Amino acid sequence: MNHEQLFQLIRKKKSFLCVGLDTDIKKIPEHLKEDPDPCFAFNKEIIDATLPFAVAYKPNLAFYEVQGAAGWESLKKTLHYLRSQSKDVFIIADAKRGDIGNTSGMYAQAFFDELSVDAVTLSPYMGKDTVSPFLEYKNRWAVLLALTSNASASNFQYFENAKGQKLFEKVIETSKSWGTTDQIMYVVGATKTEALKEIREIIPEHFLLVPGVGAQGGSLHDVAKFGMNDHCGLLVNSSRGILYASSGLDFAVKAGEKAREIQREMEVMLNSHGLI
Amino acid sequence: MNHEQLFQLIRKKKSFLCVGLDTDIKKIPEHLKEDPDPCFAFNKEIIDATLPFAVAYKPNLAFYEVQGAAGWESLKKTLHYLRSQSKDVFIIADAKRGDIGNTSGMYAQAFFDELSVDAVTLSPYMGKDTVSPFLEYKNRWAVLLALTSNASASNFQYFENAKGQKLFEKVIETSKSWGTTDQIMYVVGATKTEALKEIREIIPEHFLLVPGVGAQGGSLHDVAKFGMNDHCGLLVNSSRGILYASSGLDFAVKAGEKAREIQREMEVMLNSHGLI
Repeated sequence: MNHEQLFQLIRKKKSFLCVGLDTDIKKIPEHLKEDPDPCFAFNKEIIDATLPFAVAYKPNLAFYEVQGAAGWESLKKTLHYLRSQSKDVFIIADAKRGDIGNTSGMYAQAFFDELSVDAVTLSPYMGKDTVSPFLEYKNRWAVLLALTSNASASNFQYFENAKGQKLFEKVIETSKSWGTTDQIMYVVGATKTEALKEIREIIPEHFLLVPGVGAQGGSLHDVAKFGMNDHCGLLVNSSRGILYASSGLDFAVKAGEKAREIQREMEVMLNSHGLI
Repeated sequence: MNHEQLFQLIRKKKSFLCVGLDTDIKKIPEHLKEDPDPCFAFNKEIIDATLPFAVAYKPNLAFYEVQGAAGWESLKKTLHYLRSQSKDVFIIADAKRGDIGNTSGMYAQAFFDELSVDAVTLSPYMGKDTVSPFLEYKNRWAVLLALTSNASASNFQYFENAKGQKLFEKVIETSKSWGTTDQIMYVVGATKTEALKEIREIIPEHFLLVPGVGAQGGSLHDVAKFGMNDHCGLLVNSSRGILYASSGLDFAVKAGEKAREIQREMEVMLNSHGLI
């Protein structure tokens, strides 16, 4: 899926919602725990309930790796199921990988060939070597961490040079030339809306993956106000707010309701920006 | 294993060699490819041949993830075999993970509980949140990327503030207070020996994990000259130079010879520093 196709998907679904499949085995409802693969059983119901309202899904690898090889299988089954339900879905492996060239090539294979996702999140610390192998795949994306949503993002991401340029700005400024707007997007936390305007000056056209709405306290309204461009340019992620909207038998119904509620807010925003 | 125990292990084995188990399925000898688990079969022979000469092993996760769930199983079998052969071995999962707190906690579980390694490499980009969950485990280590061995390390790691402090120095300076020298070590590439002296001024006592000797061109002699402290303070990694010393039936013999050659050089260095 390229930049234009992603925008058309957003227009079609009137949504720029990404559902974070951060499936914590300890938090899934009791009645699913007897299932041979509780993680997949949970994900399947979440997907069924939210697919009408979401354009993207973002499993975080940590939640699968914690189950070892079984977790990897649950993830593969989840992604396979998702693709079987819709061709129109953008899948991001939230892996935050980053290594030297030959190793990074292995990660690109792991995610693009073995798991067949559309995009992978990457940490920029080791520079271009980390990203290049991912850009050799057509219609796949590298999603670089720029300004993250967590409190300690400020430890290093705000580190500033003599000209007042901060590390996250340096990362964006340097890396934007490594590939096109069909290949690279950036992670900007929803809790950092004050920086979004400034980021849009550096990269007016790139897509941004925005976590941190919901449990982490970011405002969807502010994200759209400062981050939306003429191709929407946003994928806003919600994980815990949707997955654990209820811990009972009705968890999927409640997850669907929550996703629908966010989609409706997004529809209003897309409308008011003249994009649908 | 704590700082002192690691030093005693180095003294006992007269070696600070870490063998990088970056097992590329395409590069293993033909005769092993018929094995039901060629990756494990290869690792087992490499371990048997190198264990007398190495204090540590460092599997890079990318090389296992590329095989999906089967790769994860090969890794578990490898680690289990390694522990069964020796209690005196330090295992580092080279994973370069880094995520927000609750997710980082999942990674800590994945590596310390599920895989039972001693240490995990982490990318510092997201700050303290990334590291803290790993420090809650007794006798386990977080190994932070500081100055890496690859060419594009300079993209961001040399980014400098108005006082002339570079990002990698800022990372070390800030993070050294997050835990003790029993909990934190740093990755410093062997290709960056000019910076080692300076790094030793910031962290005289910490262990450094040093990749980049061999295939990447770093000098063991210079690493020891500028990086060795009164507890050795170094784990020097070699991957490709050992694993693929030969591509034939004699690969393990050649790997053992290569590891022994490095160990002998290390013994001389430990001797000349008065550590053995």
